[in-house]
Amino acid sequence: MKIAVLFGAQSFEHEISVVSAIALKKVLKSEIVYIFCDYERNFYLIPTDTINAKRFSSGAYKKDKSLVLKQGGFFAQKMFGEEKVAFDVLINLVHGRDGEDGKLSSLLEFFAIPYIGPRIEGSCISYNKLFTKLYAKEVGVDVLDYQVLHKESKDDIRIAYPFIVKPLRLGSSIGIGIVKDEKELSYALDVAFEFDDTVLIEPFMQGVKEYNLAGCKTDGFIFSIIEEPQKEEFLDFDKKYLDFSRTKRVTEAHLDVKIQEKIREAFVKLYDPLFLGALIRCDFFVIDETIYLNEINPIPGSMANYLFDDFDTIITSLAQYLPRTTTVMKAYHYIHSIQAAKGK
Amino acid sequence: MKIAVLFGAQSFEHEISVVSAIALKKVLKSEIVYIFCDYERNFYLIPTDTINAKRFSSGAYKKDKSLVLKQGGFFAQKMFGEEKVAFDVLINLVHGRDGEDGKLSSLLEFFAIPYIGPRIEGSCISYNKLFTKLYAKEVGVDVLDYQVLHKESKDDIRIAYPFIVKPLRLGSSIGIGIVKDEKELSYALDVAFEFDDTVLIEPFMQGVKEYNLAGCKTDGFIFSIIEEPQKEEFLDFDKKYLDFSRTKRVTEAHLDVKIQEKIREAFVKLYDPLFLGALIRCDFFVIDETIYLNEINPIPGSMANYLFDDFDTIITSLAQYLPRTTTVMKAYHYIHSIQAAKGK
Repeated sequence: MKIAVLFGAQSFEHEISVVSAIALKKVLKSEIVYIFCDYERNFYLIPTDTINAKRFSSGAYKKDKSLVLKQGGFFAQKMFGEEKVAFDVLINLVHGRDGEDGKLSSLLEFFAIPYIGPRIEGSCISYNKLFTKLYAKEVGVDVLDYQVLHKESKDDIRIAYPFIVKPLRLGSSIGIGIVKDEKELSYALDVAFEFDDTVLIEPFMQGVKEYNLAGCKTDGFIFSIIEEPQKEEFLDFDKKYLDFSRTKRVTEAHLDVKIQEKIREAFVKLYDPLFLGALIRCDFFVIDETIYLNEINPIPGSMANYLFDDFDTIITSLAQYLPRTTTVMKAYHYIHSIQAAKGK
Repeated sequence: MKIAVLFGAQSFEHEISVVSAIALKKVLKSEIVYIFCDYERNFYLIPTDTINAKRFSSGAYKKDKSLVLKQGGFFAQKMFGEEKVAFDVLINLVHGRDGEDGKLSSLLEFFAIPYIGPRIEGSCISYNKLFTKLYAKEVGVDVLDYQVLHKESKDDIRIAYPFIVKPLRLGSSIGIGIVKDEKELSYALDVAFEFDDTVLIEPFMQGVKEYNLAGCKTDGFIFSIIEEPQKEEFLDFDKKYLDFSRTKRVTEAHLDVKIQEKIREAFVKLYDPLFLGALIRCDFFVIDETIYLNEINPIPGSMANYLFDDFDTIITSLAQYLPRTTTVMKAYHYIHSIQAAKGK
């Protein structure tokens, strides 16, 4: 199977995506075709053999083949005509904006390119932390208490200190701050409001246990091991960044079988059917044996490959189970009947 | 001001969009540039002078200029090089799939084309009737009771007869059926499941009053008159279809001032900030002086022009108040520091 990896784009997590993409080379046995989207949102075909991070930071990629998106695929201009970039399935590996906010899902669906990644609705729901809360509650998964605050709002904060302030939409801990008391508040809000005009406030629980589970659905559910990520207070951007280049397996969390089962049950409720076609990672808190959703990563760093035994097999089988949309039949029934009525 | 109107696309409401687009010619004083997206999702530049419905139903549009979407706009191939289609702002007038599900919003944002229409999140929330309910409740607008039913679900229906069955995602009453008793159920479900693998069930209220209000936000809110649409049981597709070609003003509903105010308050809660940049129409039920949201039409038929006095001025001023996204600065900070650490 020939797998295209789409990465980069206009995102605060652009660099993470570059590192994530290069990391996949070590764990995918299938042939890889690299399609880079630069900060200006132009597409390039990057030679797999010579890919490295410097190619992008130096701007050298601009000498690579430029691509245009059209019905059915990515096309390179040739002396005479054009050539379609050949692959069986594409992995959307753009983290954050463009990749996880629904834009690239939309482009790929509009131009009929088969892809692994969240669909538009899954993107939209997981990218916006308020929508994630509403959705999780609706499907029966608990979430921590929260409050949404707009930039110009005069509302009092009703969550007790200490709490976490998060930009409503970004991922990878960008712009997130812990506020222990009132004097730390305005700085944390300033930082978060740099990234979004709305923030989400949640209680901060010292020492709460966090567990990550990745998975997808093919003919049945495939789950990763459950990992307990290392953390200091909470994972900041630098630490998460290093995480994205991981290709080694991590150690499984020591967890009661019942709790493990509850975590997998919550994952299934969240995944099916909203995330069909994607390999996602859900991060949970466990407090007094109750499972709370922290966040849904619909395009986890390096596709969370380090949580699986045989990552290549999972990707190639997921490619066989991509969701299909109902067909819209071409029809001009009403226009024809109006014309008939008018005698035209 | 030069206004592009984008219409058609791969949607069950493709024809409605064609009629909607042609109707705008009568109410916009600004110069119009017509961009048609056919069922196969190819773009064409349609001459404004000669546009008519038959051009599309007959396939004659295929002789018009073919367009490609690239950074900054739509481009036509010329003998030497290419030419960008010039306009100041684009109206997304694609109803239903592609237009209202976030796909075209995504394309327009990705390729940096200024447009009037719902953004990705607004599309996603209003296109999915469950998400609309969750969102309305969150912003403090009441909704009717509901139940979501998946195609393979064995759940009992807990809504009492009579109820309405709606495909979870379409608009324009397609696939909707009223179920008065058990023997009508399986047919209604069959019809709805043809359009979506999930349906929403809501109590059907005989004789309930429905009121429509359209509007947008520029330097303040601009509201249309409140209309009480004519209906027999509920508006079916044929009736709504006729509605889309309307360019004449309708009669204002006779409503208590307090109720009018409540309807406008609900509109503001729903609109701001999720629908900034769009002219939307919200349809409400009024039961015992309580306002319930029925649905949000983020791209109403003919842009609900018939509800406004001076439609052209509204569109041209809305074009000055399109929402902006925060800028992502190009940065290779982490990659540079990794390279420095490696001595490369």
